[in-house]
Amino acid sequence: MNYNVRNKLRIGVFDSGIGGLTVLHSLFQKAPQHHYFYLGDTARLPYGNKSPKTLKKYVDQNIRFLLTKNVDAIVVACNSASSVIENREKYPVPIFDVIGPSAVEAVKHSFAEKVAVIATSTTVKQKAYIKAIHNLSPSTNVIQQACPLLVPLVEEGWLDDPLTNLVLYRYLSPLLLTEFDTLILGCTHYPLLIPAIKKVIGKEVKIISSAESVADDLVNYFQQTTFENFQTQPEIELYMTDDNPILPRIFSLLFNKHYEPNPQIVVIS
Amino acid sequence: MNYNVRNKLRIGVFDSGIGGLTVLHSLFQKAPQHHYFYLGDTARLPYGNKSPKTLKKYVDQNIRFLLTKNVDAIVVACNSASSVIENREKYPVPIFDVIGPSAVEAVKHSFAEKVAVIATSTTVKQKAYIKAIHNLSPSTNVIQQACPLLVPLVEEGWLDDPLTNLVLYRYLSPLLLTEFDTLILGCTHYPLLIPAIKKVIGKEVKIISSAESVADDLVNYFQQTTFENFQTQPEIELYMTDDNPILPRIFSLLFNKHYEPNPQIVVIS
Repeated sequence: MNYNVRNKLRIGVFDSGIGGLTVLHSLFQKAPQHHYFYLGDTARLPYGNKSPKTLKKYVDQNIRFLLTKNVDAIVVACNSASSVIENREKYPVPIFDVIGPSAVEAVKHSFAEKVAVIATSTTVKQKAYIKAIHNLSPSTNVIQQACPLLVPLVEEGWLDDPLTNLVLYRYLSPLLLTEFDTLILGCTHYPLLIPAIKKVIGKEVKIISSAESVADDLVNYFQQTTFENFQTQPEIELYMTDDNPILPRIFSLLFNKHYEPNPQIVVIS
Repeated sequence: MNYNVRNKLRIGVFDSGIGGLTVLHSLFQKAPQHHYFYLGDTARLPYGNKSPKTLKKYVDQNIRFLLTKNVDAIVVACNSASSVIENREKYPVPIFDVIGPSAVEAVKHSFAEKVAVIATSTTVKQKAYIKAIHNLSPSTNVIQQACPLLVPLVEEGWLDDPLTNLVLYRYLSPLLLTEFDTLILGCTHYPLLIPAIKKVIGKEVKIISSAESVADDLVNYFQQTTFENFQTQPEIELYMTDDNPILPRIFSLLFNKHYEPNPQIVVIS
């Protein structure tokens, strides 16, 4: 396909629910001219405690749904889903994941060659970040920590909260002994906790957010493409597999309080 | 069907995942002679944040799966699922839920006519306990509190933990002002937190666990039935819709550390 004759790309993004909105937000900030199709699989969320076999099925179903929207690229905006994705060449469009770009960033920034990763149980069990980082830099030491309480804390809205600080301290303090200099936020919910995380790990540690990294990756991929009609009006279609009050609320918060997300409920199975 | 000619009943029990094991455990303690079929819908857990429409579909699919096991009765061992169940007369066997029996117990015990209910978001939104209690006693005051962090805390295993005490204090302290004398644990995970809950509400408040109440309800229903061959060996078949390390662990803890649950993975959609 010759992207140069197109005004804008059609980009599909999916996540189990709200976390991927941080990725959509980064994409939209770096490339607001495109047409975005966001799918939140709220009927089956969360993904972080499902088995690889089940997640592979969900990922395939979500990709196939987005392909019906004639997208030019798909962003898997969920670390747990990214950790199980395979055979992406079987799909007709490029599939971007959130793990690869964060691994590249982490290797670039970790002078001590000590990287810590916080993520969901599934992502930790899949060792996806360990594999991705060791492919780039076998000598880098990668320490992982599953943090199952962080997603519910974000969804409860307790972002700036002493209780959240205590939970973060519980998860992060054993890692601090390893003197890592780079921390990967291996779950797309976690960028909303950055101020609280900094209170525990200090300001010297580099924090890598997969939302930022994958947006850079996608923009680089299409950098040769010229876009004739630059669009400033947000063009985002929102699909959810179940009614969920949190998704539209976070969407409005991230984008614009006055922008009504108006999601469509779809069935995927 | 004449139950008297049968040695034992075949009882189906389902939940989104592990919480319903507390119900299975109560059933098994009160009626160990039966044959139990437990289904944990781990591929789609949790239920507490899904919409009523989606939950109704899941409940119907789970009941139909258990009917293929020729069960004589089905226990909906999940409050969120119980809060949406309707038209139970369309199924060929009695369907027991966890809400009705707890409402009866609460009305019986609350001399102050002030009952507090802690539950998942879906159960609270459905106002299932308010409706059930007001049907029995319109003058009883029912106060509800959604506690979305409690299930993840139980699944993290932080049962006897200062952090859990703080979260419980956050959820329960506003309720204490109402001077309720009876607390319904409106989620089948919560019985595992009873010692921590007592630290916040004191020992004077009556705690109603839906696991206990529904087991009494089922035993009463079949009390005319005589069972010829009393079985002491546990007979429990475990089905899960996704691999999940927590379910077998909690199962072994509740029943017997040496009893291997050996669950079968099944697809339900």
